[in-house]
Amino acid sequence: MNQKLRQDADTIIQKSIQAVLPDEAVRRALADFHPGSGRTLLVSVGKAAWQMARAAADTLGQVDGGIVITKYGHVRGEIPGVESCEAGHPVPDENSFAATGKALKLVRNLTAEDTVLFLLSGGGSALFEMPLIPGEELQDITRQLLASGANIVEMNTIRKRLSGVKGGRFGQACAPAQVYSIVLSDIIGDPLDMIASGPACPDSSTCEEALAIAEKYHLQLSAGARHLLTQETPKMLDNVTTQITGSVRALCNAAAKACAALGYIPMVLTDHLDCEAREAGRFLADILQTRKGNSGIAFLAGGETVVHLTGHGLGGRNQELALAAAPGIAGIANAAVFSVGSDGTDGPTDAAGGYVDGDTMAALQAQGIDLEAVLQDNDAYHALEAVGGLIQTGPTGTNVNDVAVALLGPANMC
Amino acid sequence: MNQKLRQDADTIIQKSIQAVLPDEAVRRALADFHPGSGRTLLVSVGKAAWQMARAAADTLGQVDGGIVITKYGHVRGEIPGVESCEAGHPVPDENSFAATGKALKLVRNLTAEDTVLFLLSGGGSALFEMPLIPGEELQDITRQLLASGANIVEMNTIRKRLSGVKGGRFGQACAPAQVYSIVLSDIIGDPLDMIASGPACPDSSTCEEALAIAEKYHLQLSAGARHLLTQETPKMLDNVTTQITGSVRALCNAAAKACAALGYIPMVLTDHLDCEAREAGRFLADILQTRKGNSGIAFLAGGETVVHLTGHGLGGRNQELALAAAPGIAGIANAAVFSVGSDGTDGPTDAAGGYVDGDTMAALQAQGIDLEAVLQDNDAYHALEAVGGLIQTGPTGTNVNDVAVALLGPANMC
Repeated sequence: MNQKLRQDADTIIQKSIQAVLPDEAVRRALADFHPGSGRTLLVSVGKAAWQMARAAADTLGQVDGGIVITKYGHVRGEIPGVESCEAGHPVPDENSFAATGKALKLVRNLTAEDTVLFLLSGGGSALFEMPLIPGEELQDITRQLLASGANIVEMNTIRKRLSGVKGGRFGQACAPAQVYSIVLSDIIGDPLDMIASGPACPDSSTCEEALAIAEKYHLQLSAGARHLLTQETPKMLDNVTTQITGSVRALCNAAAKACAALGYIPMVLTDHLDCEAREAGRFLADILQTRKGNSGIAFLAGGETVVHLTGHGLGGRNQELALAAAPGIAGIANAAVFSVGSDGTDGPTDAAGGYVDGDTMAALQAQGIDLEAVLQDNDAYHALEAVGGLIQTGPTGTNVNDVAVALLGPANMC
Repeated sequence: MNQKLRQDADTIIQKSIQAVLPDEAVRRALADFHPGSGRTLLVSVGKAAWQMARAAADTLGQVDGGIVITKYGHVRGEIPGVESCEAGHPVPDENSFAATGKALKLVRNLTAEDTVLFLLSGGGSALFEMPLIPGEELQDITRQLLASGANIVEMNTIRKRLSGVKGGRFGQACAPAQVYSIVLSDIIGDPLDMIASGPACPDSSTCEEALAIAEKYHLQLSAGARHLLTQETPKMLDNVTTQITGSVRALCNAAAKACAALGYIPMVLTDHLDCEAREAGRFLADILQTRKGNSGIAFLAGGETVVHLTGHGLGGRNQELALAAAPGIAGIANAAVFSVGSDGTDGPTDAAGGYVDGDTMAALQAQGIDLEAVLQDNDAYHALEAVGGLIQTGPTGTNVNDVAVALLGPANMC
């Protein structure tokens, strides 16, 4: 293995993840936060809710009340003035509904001078929910929609109208108070109405569409549910300001900055990567192969690749991406490809991702490891482990998807 | 469909293929050709041999003798002073051996003042062969190697030693005459020793390696064949000058030039593309998606993608690449992705490739075409046909693989 390249990779990974940790991300976003003259209340929802709230409370010094709603086991201590609740994920439970009720109560009867600091991270769809119909009926309607073949847009059009907080309704409930929403995005492209079903995001779907969908799929609805479909969601929320702070774009940009600091000329190819993991790895290797002989360049691609399982091995999309790049850069002394999940856990493994360089193929062959067979068995973990190619960071507390980097190191390293 | 983008695509395709047509490629390479004071002989081998010879004869005015060895049905007329032969491909036949014998006779007893203009294109491995053992024994050894699981490098190490022209031996046979070799490459990365098994390329494999392979796989060899394995191939050919003229790199560079002429800033990502066709399309779409809002940029990727058949539809790798890019650029008014095979025939179809733009997904949906189902059935041809997305050039007479282009058109086109 090329120790210099591996060291550069580790530095780039560390700096990239650092930049999208909830703490750092919230702190950065709060630079533009100017609360009104009234009270400041904190509502923090999602898998990173506790860290985000902790960072906000630290930065602001104090808040006038607040609530954290996160996954079971994710509360790590007390935050002064803030109630921390744990609830069901990915399936909402009674604790989700109860905590969401407390959040709604907290923002009731505010004035235009008051401010709600709304911190949102992935997982909010389940954790932050207040159904306007009995939970059982909501489950039944969801089942009907799934069975009918409705697409995700159609499902959301119906479900937003059956919820007291989704589709912009939480933002509306805060009015006339100002809402400053900081979003740590876990969805590529940062579609605000998709992240936690957009509690503080205007909804573009209409009642007409909702009724048409109910008719199209012959949904069996109670009178109450049918009535809710005729209740419009907010089309405009002029009391809400939103800032996306952690996102795969931020991750890519931080990685690019780290590359530049190490002397590489960085190019972010995409922050929308969504193709098959191993093919993305091959494409990145092909790019390096073409530039063989050059030095000091870094190509970056962020997003969330997919893996279609064909075997029963151990691995994850980042490990598979990296391993699949090995043949294409074999023998190129200054080439490396690595990929890492910002959450620090790639697939069901203790690794965050994988690293390969120009020496990896020879190292695999020396151990009698057949790369194609490994990929076929989705067993990247053991192959990378055998050649020192695992990237291990431990859980990071954030999740803004992955970044893959293809490096051509300095010329004098060969 | 965006007519302006489609028009740009057609212009780029036309100019790119033009640059790698055998005629144009040979003419360009001959700019550096300075024959000696003696005779100039022409040996042209491969699927494009006739066109290359025709272009050379036209450019040079006359040659002092020559031979064309090409596939059946590929001779298109008489070239003064040149004998045109047709032979078996992909399996060599008696006509291959006879024509190769004539070529060897033509270059025998030349002087240092004479020059052999050696034109090589894909298909030369079968068309240009002179086994030093009986054809049947050669077939038997090939069968043994295949059955033993020998890799392509091992097979070539053995076979070069059983041939009178492969592994640099044709270049050696021409000595002391100078050989000027012009190669139209159909293999990514232009490995000269692989193109037609390198008749004019020094061979890096050794007799020791050949004997070790024979032992490793317990090859059954006649005394004659065993003796041949001890006969070294040329390690240096100081009478040979080689120029690669048509290649996927030339195709990419021509496409980049055509993009620039139309006002795009071009970037050749790779000329080694070898991943799954549809995933390459998705990757290119992801790159455009990330730059949504920009204008006048072109990303290019050349090579030869692969398709793993999962259905029974009609299509080719270029059509599949383009079609798979459609969802990722849907709704981006100035985005287009297209891919084309330089030979003008993509898969078993009458199309050279496919074109999609920001309007394609809507056009497919309007016709009730389910893109995922189409890809699953490998039926890109019919889907593209339905939305005017086929690229049809007719057979071009060249083959230097494919080029895919992702465009963000001018800003004012939306």
